[in-house]
Amino acid sequence: MATRKEHDFIGELEIDDSKYYGVQSFRALENFKMTGRTFGDYPFFVKAFAQIKKAAAMANAELGVLDKTKADYLCKAADRIIAGEFSDQFVVDMVQGGAGTSTNMNMNEVLTNVALEMMGKKKGEYGPDTLHPNDHTNLAQSTNDTYPSSIKVATYAKLCDLQAELEKLEAELNKKGQEWKDIIKMGRTELEDAVPTTLGNTFKAFGHYIKNSLKQLELAKEPMTHLNMGATAIGTGINCHPDYKDCVEKHLSAITGIKFIPSTNFIAATQDTADFVFVSGVLKSLAVRLSKIANDIRLMNSGPRTGLSEVELPKMQPGSSIMPGKVNPVICEVTGVACYEVFGNDTTITHCSERAEFELNAFEPGIAYALFNSIVILENAARTLRERAIVGLKANPEACLNHVLNSVGIVTALNPAIGYEKSASIAKEALETGKRVGDICFERGYLSREEIDKLLDPKNMLDPRMTK
Amino acid sequence: MATRKEHDFIGELEIDDSKYYGVQSFRALENFKMTGRTFGDYPFFVKAFAQIKKAAAMANAELGVLDKTKADYLCKAADRIIAGEFSDQFVVDMVQGGAGTSTNMNMNEVLTNVALEMMGKKKGEYGPDTLHPNDHTNLAQSTNDTYPSSIKVATYAKLCDLQAELEKLEAELNKKGQEWKDIIKMGRTELEDAVPTTLGNTFKAFGHYIKNSLKQLELAKEPMTHLNMGATAIGTGINCHPDYKDCVEKHLSAITGIKFIPSTNFIAATQDTADFVFVSGVLKSLAVRLSKIANDIRLMNSGPRTGLSEVELPKMQPGSSIMPGKVNPVICEVTGVACYEVFGNDTTITHCSERAEFELNAFEPGIAYALFNSIVILENAARTLRERAIVGLKANPEACLNHVLNSVGIVTALNPAIGYEKSASIAKEALETGKRVGDICFERGYLSREEIDKLLDPKNMLDPRMTK
Amino acid sequence: MATRKEHDFIGELEIDDSKYYGVQSFRALENFKMTGRTFGDYPFFVKAFAQIKKAAAMANAELGVLDKTKADYLCKAADRIIAGEFSDQFVVDMVQGGAGTSTNMNMNEVLTNVALEMMGKKKGEYGPDTLHPNDHTNLAQSTNDTYPSSIKVATYAKLCDLQAELEKLEAELNKKGQEWKDIIKMGRTELEDAVPTTLGNTFKAFGHYIKNSLKQLELAKEPMTHLNMGATAIGTGINCHPDYKDCVEKHLSAITGIKFIPSTNFIAATQDTADFVFVSGVLKSLAVRLSKIANDIRLMNSGPRTGLSEVELPKMQPGSSIMPGKVNPVICEVTGVACYEVFGNDTTITHCSERAEFELNAFEPGIAYALFNSIVILENAARTLRERAIVGLKANPEACLNHVLNSVGIVTALNPAIGYEKSASIAKEALETGKRVGDICFERGYLSREEIDKLLDPKNMLDPRMTK
Amino acid sequence: MATRKEHDFIGELEIDDSKYYGVQSFRALENFKMTGRTFGDYPFFVKAFAQIKKAAAMANAELGVLDKTKADYLCKAADRIIAGEFSDQFVVDMVQGGAGTSTNMNMNEVLTNVALEMMGKKKGEYGPDTLHPNDHTNLAQSTNDTYPSSIKVATYAKLCDLQAELEKLEAELNKKGQEWKDIIKMGRTELEDAVPTTLGNTFKAFGHYIKNSLKQLELAKEPMTHLNMGATAIGTGINCHPDYKDCVEKHLSAITGIKFIPSTNFIAATQDTADFVFVSGVLKSLAVRLSKIANDIRLMNSGPRTGLSEVELPKMQPGSSIMPGKVNPVICEVTGVACYEVFGNDTTITHCSERAEFELNAFEPGIAYALFNSIVILENAARTLRERAIVGLKANPEACLNHVLNSVGIVTALNPAIGYEKSASIAKEALETGKRVGDICFERGYLSREEIDKLLDPKNMLDPRMTK
Repeated sequence: MATRKEHDFIGELEIDDSKYYGVQSFRALENFKMTGRTFGDYPFFVKAFAQIKKAAAMANAELGVLDKTKADYLCKAADRIIAGEFSDQFVVDMVQGGAGTSTNMNMNEVLTNVALEMMGKKKGEYGPDTLHPNDHTNLAQSTNDTYPSSIKVATYAKLCDLQAELEKLEAELNKKGQEWKDIIKMGRTELEDAVPTTLGNTFKAFGHYIKNSLKQLELAKEPMTHLNMGATAIGTGINCHPDYKDCVEKHLSAITGIKFIPSTNFIAATQDTADFVFVSGVLKSLAVRLSKIANDIRLMNSGPRTGLSEVELPKMQPGSSIMPGKVNPVICEVTGVACYEVFGNDTTITHCSERAEFELNAFEPGIAYALFNSIVILENAARTLRERAIVGLKANPEACLNHVLNSVGIVTALNPAIGYEKSASIAKEALETGKRVGDICFERGYLSREEIDKLLDPKNMLDPRMTK
Repeated sequence: MATRKEHDFIGELEIDDSKYYGVQSFRALENFKMTGRTFGDYPFFVKAFAQIKKAAAMANAELGVLDKTKADYLCKAADRIIAGEFSDQFVVDMVQGGAGTSTNMNMNEVLTNVALEMMGKKKGEYGPDTLHPNDHTNLAQSTNDTYPSSIKVATYAKLCDLQAELEKLEAELNKKGQEWKDIIKMGRTELEDAVPTTLGNTFKAFGHYIKNSLKQLELAKEPMTHLNMGATAIGTGINCHPDYKDCVEKHLSAITGIKFIPSTNFIAATQDTADFVFVSGVLKSLAVRLSKIANDIRLMNSGPRTGLSEVELPKMQPGSSIMPGKVNPVICEVTGVACYEVFGNDTTITHCSERAEFELNAFEPGIAYALFNSIVILENAARTLRERAIVGLKANPEACLNHVLNSVGIVTALNPAIGYEKSASIAKEALETGKRVGDICFERGYLSREEIDKLLDPKNMLDPRMTK
Repeated sequence: MATRKEHDFIGELEIDDSKYYGVQSFRALENFKMTGRTFGDYPFFVKAFAQIKKAAAMANAELGVLDKTKADYLCKAADRIIAGEFSDQFVVDMVQGGAGTSTNMNMNEVLTNVALEMMGKKKGEYGPDTLHPNDHTNLAQSTNDTYPSSIKVATYAKLCDLQAELEKLEAELNKKGQEWKDIIKMGRTELEDAVPTTLGNTFKAFGHYIKNSLKQLELAKEPMTHLNMGATAIGTGINCHPDYKDCVEKHLSAITGIKFIPSTNFIAATQDTADFVFVSGVLKSLAVRLSKIANDIRLMNSGPRTGLSEVELPKMQPGSSIMPGKVNPVICEVTGVACYEVFGNDTTITHCSERAEFELNAFEPGIAYALFNSIVILENAARTLRERAIVGLKANPEACLNHVLNSVGIVTALNPAIGYEKSASIAKEALETGKRVGDICFERGYLSREEIDKLLDPKNMLDPRMTK
Repeated sequence: MATRKEHDFIGELEIDDSKYYGVQSFRALENFKMTGRTFGDYPFFVKAFAQIKKAAAMANAELGVLDKTKADYLCKAADRIIAGEFSDQFVVDMVQGGAGTSTNMNMNEVLTNVALEMMGKKKGEYGPDTLHPNDHTNLAQSTNDTYPSSIKVATYAKLCDLQAELEKLEAELNKKGQEWKDIIKMGRTELEDAVPTTLGNTFKAFGHYIKNSLKQLELAKEPMTHLNMGATAIGTGINCHPDYKDCVEKHLSAITGIKFIPSTNFIAATQDTADFVFVSGVLKSLAVRLSKIANDIRLMNSGPRTGLSEVELPKMQPGSSIMPGKVNPVICEVTGVACYEVFGNDTTITHCSERAEFELNAFEPGIAYALFNSIVILENAARTLRERAIVGLKANPEACLNHVLNSVGIVTALNPAIGYEKSASIAKEALETGKRVGDICFERGYLSREEIDKLLDPKNMLDPRMTK
């Protein structure tokens, strides 16, 4: 194995020369053996980080504090990383101490060595005339600026992906809602028979949940556009050109196609991570909704013989290693587990965020790890649920109707005509004797057959505004 | 309003002389307006605190550091508080800063003034020759000792109450299990038809859950017997007679009838509240079990016409303000909410406990509040569930059996005779055609009618060990 | 005790005639003995519920489905409840099953009996010609509509109160930020010396946190304006006049002064409570911020002799029952506990919300209880923190400055002039020898004294934009 | 790519013949694209699962229900997997639906194909005369038995590993405690000066925390020894030899060297996962303790110039990309993040566990994933903290002592001699004037110089029992 020597102020290390990362990444590899999940396992985070590095190099060149040639090489190297090259070089564990310094230095070292090679130099040939990971690649880019900024850029991008996936899910749910608008089914509250609805109503309501979460995700994206670049160290802007913050945001907006702006209070932005708690709250609210959809479908699909059997999920895999023919609602279940992961991540994010002290939050890597895991798993869950459960879902209109016809809850429709107390009395008799609601009402002479039939027609119990 | 003047080193206050509490409680009333839930709202905590005060007075007298007469008056005053007198005098908010100092001083002030009146003195006549809340009543009783110790004594006592309530619930569940041992019903996994079981099995299993939690509650009680008395301030035992810790535990054990012992490391005991997290974990595990029982009963009770209707809950109240005759499983539901309260309290306890610093945990009042709320609501939920849902619960044997006879899952019983693949094929045909499993097996000539009937008799699918 | 008889379809009860509540509230009292916290303990919830009842009565009268005289009496009775009368009549436990039916019926019964007395009737004289709690008072007001709607109206109102309190806190923090803009102090990241800042920066940043939360609270209020009135039962609008929903919102908006609108999908609105999870997420984010402020102040206040002593909290109460003269940061601590309560409530809300099934969420009372507790305690904490910690907080400029002058972190300011590696080497020597950073730089001949003095002047390390 | 065809009752698939896993694993790969974390990423889980498969094969052979030769090949194949071969063949995502069926079938398929090759057959040559993944490899091994049993065996084994790691940490902490028993330092409560202690006391207390958690981990292991083998499907023992359960436990105990026993209620064991919540509670309590240790060390290490500087952490990596020479307490920080991961996992486990329905918990894969992640990260954190923070930690005795000598809290030691009120008055004067406590006491004539010096000697304030 060819090696090279690198040093930092802790000392010198001999490192594998095939690696683009350097001494500080090597130290981090030793220090943080925690989850086995690396920076590189989150390619959208690598991409966002490289975009920021590129924007910073461009701004530094524009402001005259970085040599134009150096900046160009850094930009070209960044472009290759943005395009997905060197993905195996981002090796530090996502769970780390140091508030993200190791992640920033992993990026700085890879970027520098890629650029050095493009300049015709060797890896590790750092210097004032070539490139130095701290003095040039990291110029005016405190970890305390780039790390939270990269999390925000990555989060913004992934929230967009999540929204795109959710829009497809919403559309599919609404499509089912439209297709099934005339399938009358029993409404149930507290698991007890209530009044009729339609299967279409159910799926349109599911679609509406997603619509609400889409709106809230839009709100969640807003604080992700307020970046820390230019704060440097603790937010006082030490060592930083006064025009830098606007300049870097300009370039970053151009690179990403998203409008980013500098935080209006850099001191606060450096130490306060509560906006991530806000974002996680929106994700948690979405998870509650996805879980509800998955669980309701599981309940409607229950059976095949001893449950409700109102819908039928596509068969995805054998359901049992010993019960032949058994098929389980595995897609709905895995959606549930995904949502419970999100709840767990929210707890982690809260703890990490609450532990900020003074001018920084040292536990931000825990936030990044949990937040990215939440967004990714929600995107996966939404896609899986749509493709493997909703698209192929079938309705069972007969089972749905039979439940309504058997029910007592339709007595509610008699209220306006005969009052709550008489209706309650009919309901009681129906439940005790098994007689039909309409027959009891007629026997007691409360209403004519015609009136009764009209009132008890399930279609008339539905809101005409809803079934259009 | 008659008033008296009291002072502490912050200054002097004129206070309502009808109150037994004094200047420090008054300050706490002003400082901590948080929940409106007072020390006195938790009578078992008041009792535990007074028991510790009494034990300390006895120990101080025995060791010769407190005048015998003073100690006697303090013991008599403590006895009245233990008996429930002066319950409206424990006024400080449960949620407070100061690591419980205000709660300790509330107790010291009330105890002192009650004792002073019994001595023929006036409230507030504190002094070396009468009684002083700090110098005598609180002698060798740092808040840092008495507050966690009182929480532990109170927790121990309430865990015993909870266990007693759970034993009744376990007995009632097992009673139903025994009564219903011959009611065959469908077993369901992942909400899908599996193989037959009995309603008796279901309720015996519920009983077994509780049995497991009872064992774990016993484990939870153990760390509650390690008390802090004698640690003083930070655990170094400053100003404290070396025999005091054993002496106070001896008296406390006699007073309470529970064997308490001194912590083996007072420094650790003063600052580490993770044992409360352990206790809360046991309560959370119990809550998971209670919630499972309540939810399964809700599912089995679902209907009356469009659900499973395998059991019937007693009707506790009208279920709807507009749907006549509707009855809901309100007792199972409130049990669920109670459990979700426990999950929330566990979160609070974790945060408060994780925030300990150096020699003390300043957030211990948050632990006490959440922990007591969890135990109390679990006790209430267990009682309510038993009295109002389990005792009056009725089985519906016909519905249970019909589900089994309609099911396809019984095909599992053919596996040993014809193999998994043939069984799976029969299952598939049965589901597609609606034919009965046994008929298909016979048509295909796999087995004789006699063999089939024997294998498919639901009784033969049950573990004979289970149904005895 | 005078009694009267009331009945529902469960049966007849003899009840204390001094009570305005009736048979269904009595059943709820028996069924739900959980927390001891009653509907009436949340006066803003009682008020919101009565406002909705009044608006519904007005709408029903306007639409001709309720007799004008009956409606007038109901409105007058509602006005008395809104004004705070009969507050001891709202007795049902906040933690309940039945999705809030007991709370709705408690309101219906009190309202009806108050109105009956105003009509010259006796309590309990329900009937078609007088008033009936279900047929008139509750007309077109399914619990499934009024309960979530009341939670939303109450939440909206309390969020406004919370915002008002937070605005005062923000102003006070900014005032301190302005006052202390010239007090140079050490910035610390990861508890280690970083670069200088000012105490003003710190408090302006705290103010900025609150500003961010105020914006997010505004977002949280929006979904609270989408009400369920007119959904009835499951959202299909059964038994409900088509113009009712707009009419009732019109009246409610007039009564409350807040613009409310009907949900755009009543089916979804009846079953999906994830918007409360969104609101709770915003509150949790705020709690993270308040806790950060309180903890940083605790750290800056630490001492008086062996800590940082950069600020001095007002003395609120003696801090120890045995350590004389000890004063603790009790207000900051109680703020912390309050925040940890909010985290616990968020857990409860998530569990309750995730447990919705089909057309309703049976666990909504758990949401209401936890959500109201969060808002109330945050309002209390914000007020307490401001009044008792921030207003009287004093700065210790000498301690702040001494820390800066002793520090090594100022070496960062040399980076642009001499590069990262030389600066790191100076820092190392300074730490090892105790020498001053500037002296080492001069000794090594890197810069002139003049250059060094200029670079190392703490004032020059501050962002001029920040200190204005 | 060579392929083979495999089928299940869903249909036939053409699969890559280089893979040992088969059709059902392939379906699972398609169905569950969630986390990217596979079964094989948890080698201790693979090992435990293979141990159970081997024990089942041995039991089936002994009971005469499985051909001896088949069993032998299965055992040999299992041994290779136990030894770590084929680790890349365990490919299903840890987060899955289906209650673990895909994990069980992944193991069955790999095991069968490895055994087939050892028999001289080809992969996929399943049959009655060779081996069939369901009929032979999975004989009497419902997923509902093997999956929870494997989780328990794996958890038990990893809890032992965790204990071993914690014992080393405890020993190292106690070693520091012993070394530093004479280093007097200030005790602090609520971040305020309290009374003196020693650095040795602090680290012995840390050691004691770990000791307490070790005891609780021992309790957590006990429920992990109650296995489900023999329950089959839902716990009724369908299709299972009555002696099987004892026989399989006998073999498993021999294979693993751990005493396992059958659950005493198989029905309960199949559906109730609350024991995992109990285990997670113990882990959470441990995490609270580790976090406390890490945070206290961070506080004591704070500085180097503007903090407490009572201890000095070894320098592990450069602490800033822009602040030269800065070193941060990264090991303590990553320990914190690890603990916050554990808190998040506990939330996930609670949600998954609470969602059990009827005869099974479909969400058990979420429990396994979170529980394993918690144990692994705690083991990593304990090792990292010991090796990289505790072993190399240095004390700063001068700084420790200076804090004590500067403090006012030592006035507590005067209490027994002059009473609380006089002491408080001295403390007040000392704080206001900067005078020393002893001087004020002498000036006021309360005590002689000799008495004062004796009382205020820090050594005399320490518990002699503690400092031995």
